[in-house]
Amino acid sequence: MRNFYSIFSFLIFITEFKISQSDGGYLTFGPQFRATVGEVWPKPYRQVKSDKFYAVNSSDFQFVAVNKNCALLRAALTRYSKIIAATANGNFSTPATTNFAIIRKFRVNLTQSCESLPHLDMDESYYVRGDGVVRADSIWGILRGLETFVQLLVPMSNGLLLTRRTEIYDQPRFKYRGLMLDSARHFVSKAKILQLIEGMAYNKLNVFHWHMTDDSAFPYVSSVFPELSAKGAYRPELTYSKADVLEVVKFARMRGVRVVPEFDTPAHTASWGASHPEIMTKCAGKFEGQIGPLNPTKESTFDFLYKLFSEIKTLFPDKYLHLGVDEVDSACWESNADIQDYLKAHGLDNGDLPYRYLERYSANISAMGWLQMVWQEAMIENSYMEWPKGTIAQVWFDYKKTMATLTKKGHDVIMSDGWYLYVLDTGADWEKLYNVEPTDFNGSKAQMAHVIGGEACLWSEWINEHNVLSTTFPRVSAIAERLWSPVEELSVDEARLRLEEHNCRLMARGIEARPANGFGLC
Amino acid sequence: MRNFYSIFSFLIFITEFKISQSDGGYLTFGPQFRATVGEVWPKPYRQVKSDKFYAVNSSDFQFVAVNKNCALLRAALTRYSKIIAATANGNFSTPATTNFAIIRKFRVNLTQSCESLPHLDMDESYYVRGDGVVRADSIWGILRGLETFVQLLVPMSNGLLLTRRTEIYDQPRFKYRGLMLDSARHFVSKAKILQLIEGMAYNKLNVFHWHMTDDSAFPYVSSVFPELSAKGAYRPELTYSKADVLEVVKFARMRGVRVVPEFDTPAHTASWGASHPEIMTKCAGKFEGQIGPLNPTKESTFDFLYKLFSEIKTLFPDKYLHLGVDEVDSACWESNADIQDYLKAHGLDNGDLPYRYLERYSANISAMGWLQMVWQEAMIENSYMEWPKGTIAQVWFDYKKTMATLTKKGHDVIMSDGWYLYVLDTGADWEKLYNVEPTDFNGSKAQMAHVIGGEACLWSEWINEHNVLSTTFPRVSAIAERLWSPVEELSVDEARLRLEEHNCRLMARGIEARPANGFGLC
Repeated sequence: MRNFYSIFSFLIFITEFKISQSDGGYLTFGPQFRATVGEVWPKPYRQVKSDKFYAVNSSDFQFVAVNKNCALLRAALTRYSKIIAATANGNFSTPATTNFAIIRKFRVNLTQSCESLPHLDMDESYYVRGDGVVRADSIWGILRGLETFVQLLVPMSNGLLLTRRTEIYDQPRFKYRGLMLDSARHFVSKAKILQLIEGMAYNKLNVFHWHMTDDSAFPYVSSVFPELSAKGAYRPELTYSKADVLEVVKFARMRGVRVVPEFDTPAHTASWGASHPEIMTKCAGKFEGQIGPLNPTKESTFDFLYKLFSEIKTLFPDKYLHLGVDEVDSACWESNADIQDYLKAHGLDNGDLPYRYLERYSANISAMGWLQMVWQEAMIENSYMEWPKGTIAQVWFDYKKTMATLTKKGHDVIMSDGWYLYVLDTGADWEKLYNVEPTDFNGSKAQMAHVIGGEACLWSEWINEHNVLSTTFPRVSAIAERLWSPVEELSVDEARLRLEEHNCRLMARGIEARPANGFGLC
Repeated sequence: MRNFYSIFSFLIFITEFKISQSDGGYLTFGPQFRATVGEVWPKPYRQVKSDKFYAVNSSDFQFVAVNKNCALLRAALTRYSKIIAATANGNFSTPATTNFAIIRKFRVNLTQSCESLPHLDMDESYYVRGDGVVRADSIWGILRGLETFVQLLVPMSNGLLLTRRTEIYDQPRFKYRGLMLDSARHFVSKAKILQLIEGMAYNKLNVFHWHMTDDSAFPYVSSVFPELSAKGAYRPELTYSKADVLEVVKFARMRGVRVVPEFDTPAHTASWGASHPEIMTKCAGKFEGQIGPLNPTKESTFDFLYKLFSEIKTLFPDKYLHLGVDEVDSACWESNADIQDYLKAHGLDNGDLPYRYLERYSANISAMGWLQMVWQEAMIENSYMEWPKGTIAQVWFDYKKTMATLTKKGHDVIMSDGWYLYVLDTGADWEKLYNVEPTDFNGSKAQMAHVIGGEACLWSEWINEHNVLSTTFPRVSAIAERLWSPVEELSVDEARLRLEEHNCRLMARGIEARPANGFGLC
C-alpha cells in the first residue's frame, strides 16, 4: 500500500498547491498553475472516481473490439494506439510508481452497427471505465469514449502510464459543436486544416464549417467552372482541389466530425465576379462602377448556381449546406436600371429582391437534397421567407435579442456571438470565451430547446498558415467545454488547472497550441 | 521601350490602387492592401530612384567580393545567394517582362578589414546601387547593404527577378535596435531562437537580449553549478547547453547581431533557490515561509555570483551584460533577522541593502571586463549608486518621466515602454508599435543624444514555441523601422503597403509571420 498512498498524496498535493504565486508575496519557482493529473476535457456528464490505480505500458497493450467492428473503429484504434505512445512522451508527468497492476487489454464494446457518416442527430453518448472499458451504442460514442479513455492516462517519470478505475457516463449537452474556418481571406493549407480537425476531435467538437469563398478569393477549383479559381483565387497554388476537399471530408468523418460547406451568396461574392461578371449586379448612381451582389433577376444566375452546387454536392456528403446570406446590402440592386425594369415588369418592388433570390436559390438547394444553415440576417431581415423545415440560423451579433426572436418563431439556432477567435486580448482570454452561455437570453423552455449548439469562428483577416493553430488552441477548448459539459458544473476556476493539463496534452499530440494560463511548461 | 513603359505603368498602378475596399461601397476581389514592389524595409536614410530596370536570373548570378574579404563575408554571400533563390519562389510577383538587360555580377566592395564581433558602436552604414553594387567601410555595413540589395529584387511571373538602378545611402538612426526573449517563463527551442535572429537580421535589428532565467525556471545548464538547471529548469530537456548558447551566439554574430545575456538578479531568482537556498533570503513576519531575493549580506552570495558569471563570460563575447535588477522588493530583506543583525554590526540601515548588493555585484562584473545594462529601477530607485561609465538603462514604464530623469543625469537609455510584444490587440496593432517614439519626452538636445535605441520585449507568459514567431513578425518590423529610419519620414500610412510587401518577403524566406494588414496573400 505504500505506493498507493504515495501517489494518492501526490494527487492531493497537486490539487492543493495549485498556484505558485503566493498572495502578495514572492514567487516560487515552477509553473504559474500546476496542471491536474488525468482529468478529462471537456468535463464529462458524470464521473465516479475511485482510488484504485493501474499502470499501462505504452509498448505492451491492446485494444480489443469485443462486439461490433468496422473500418471506422479499426482506424480509430490504430490512431489512439499511437496517441498513447505520444502521451508516454508527454511534457507532464507524475512521480514514478512501479507496483500497480499493469493492464494490457482495453475492451471496446460497440453494440450497434457502424454508421458511415456523422450527422446532426448522431448518438455520442458512451461509458468508460478507466481500467480498460469503452462502451457505446454508436461508433460516434465509441470515438468520444476512446478520447476520454486515453485522456485518463498520465505519463509517469518511469515511462509507464498511470490510470485509475474511474467510471464515466458521458453525453454532450448540445448536438452542434462547431469550428468555422474562413479559407478565403487568407489561404490555409490542407495540412493545417487536417491539424485543426484533429484538434477538434481531441476536444469532442463535431462540425467543421468550411467558409470556402468570400469577396477576397475563390480558392476552390471547380471542374464545371475552373475559371472561378483561375481568376478569383489569390494565386493558382493557393487553392483546394477536389482531391483536397475529399481528403478533408474523409479525415473529418473518420473522427466523427461533420464538414458543412459554405460558398457564401448573394453578397461576399466579388471573387466570383472576377470570372463571371454576368451573374453580378453592376451598381449605378452613388456606387457607379462598383459591383454588387449576385443578380437575383436573371435566370442565368440560378442556372449558374445550380451547376456549381450540383458539383459541390458530390464532394460534401453532409446533409447540411450553409447558404451564407450575411451582410446583404440591397443598395446596388436598387440602383441597377435592368433590375428596376424587371421589378416593374413583374409588379414587384425593391423589398421583393432578397425574397426573389432566397426563394429560388433555397428551393434549388432543397431539391438537391440538402438541409440548410444561414447567418442570422437571412431570417431576421427576411422575416416572411418560408425556410425549409430544419433550417438552422447562426447567430453572430446582438444575440440576446436575436436568439429570443428566432427561437420564438421555432427556428433552431447556434451561437457564435462572442466566439470570433480573431478577437484577441492579452492573457488568459479563454476565460471570456468560456463564459459565453448560448442560452443566456429571455425565453421559454421550448425556446431554449431550439438552441442546438454553437460554433467558434476563425475569420481569417488576421489568421494565416502560421498562427491558425496557436490562435485556435487552447482557446477553442473553452468553447468546446461550454458546449459539451453540464452547464451547472462550468466554472472558470475549476476549469483552469484541467485546461492547463489539456493544453499540455494537445501539445504532446502535436497540436501547436499557445499557452493557456501564463508561465509554465506548455 | 514598350516593356519599360508597361512595367512602369504597372508600378504606378499598384501605387494608386492600393486598397481594394471602395469607400463605403462594395469590396472588389483580391487582397485588402496591395503590397509595394521592391521597396526596402526599414526605409533607408536616402534613396534616389531611377526608371532603369534590370532582370536577374536566380540560377545565374554571382556575388563578387572586389576588395576586402573574410569568413563573415563569404558566409553572408552564400546566405544571400540562397535567399535570392527563395525570393524567386516568393508569394508576390509582378507581370513578366523579358527584355530588360540581365545583370549577373553583384560587386561587393568592403573597404576595411572585417571586425569579428558586432558591437554597440559598429559602423552599419552602406551604399547600394540596384544594378549590382554593395559598398561599405565595415563588414556590418556590408551585411545591412546585402539585405537591402536583395530586398530590391522582385519575382516576376516568368521566374526572373526584377530590379532597378536605384541608389541607396543608408545608416541607422539609433545604434541599439534590440529584441529581448524571456526563455524562462516558457522554454523556446534553439531552433526557434535561430529563426528569431534570422528574422531580426531581415529587419536590420542588431541586439538579441537573452533574458535567460527568472523566478519560474533556470534553463541554462552550467558546468560549475549544474544543479541550477537540474533542479531549477521546468524539465531536464527544457534547457540550453553550453553548445546551444555558443551556436546561438555564432549564428547571431554571422548576421551582425549582438547577444547580450541577462541572468536577472537579485529578484526574479526563485529558480536559483531550488538548488541554492543558501544564497537566498528567508522571509519572516508577513512573508514567513517565503523566499525572497539573493541575500546581499553574505560573502557566499558574491562568491557564487563570481563563479557563475565567470563561466557565463566565456560563452557570451559581447562587451555588455544585462544585470537585470528589476522589481526588487526589499520587504523580505528587511524582515530577515540575520540581515538586520548584519546591518547593526556594520552601522548600516535598510536603505543600504540594495547598494550593498549592487556595489559588490557590479564591481565584480566590471572586474571581469563587462560593461553593464540594467532595467530602469536599478538607476531610478538607487539614485546614489555610481554606475560604471557606459551603463545603459532599459526603460519599460513611465517613459516620459524616466527618460527625462535618466538622460538628465547623463545616462544612456533604450526604450521598451510600449514595445512589450505579449500585449495583444485585434487587428493591425503594428501601427501602435510603430508610433512609439523613444525621444518623445521633454529634454535638451544633449539629453536626446543619450537615447541610443530601443528594444522589443518577448516576455513569455503567453508565448511558447508555437506562437513566438507569429507574435514577433511582422510586429517587430514596425519597431525596427522606427529605430532605423529618419524620424521625419515615419508614417503608418506610407509604411502600410511596404510592410505588406516586407511581410510577404519574410514568409517567402521561411519566417512564420502572421498577417500584417487584414485579408491578403501573406
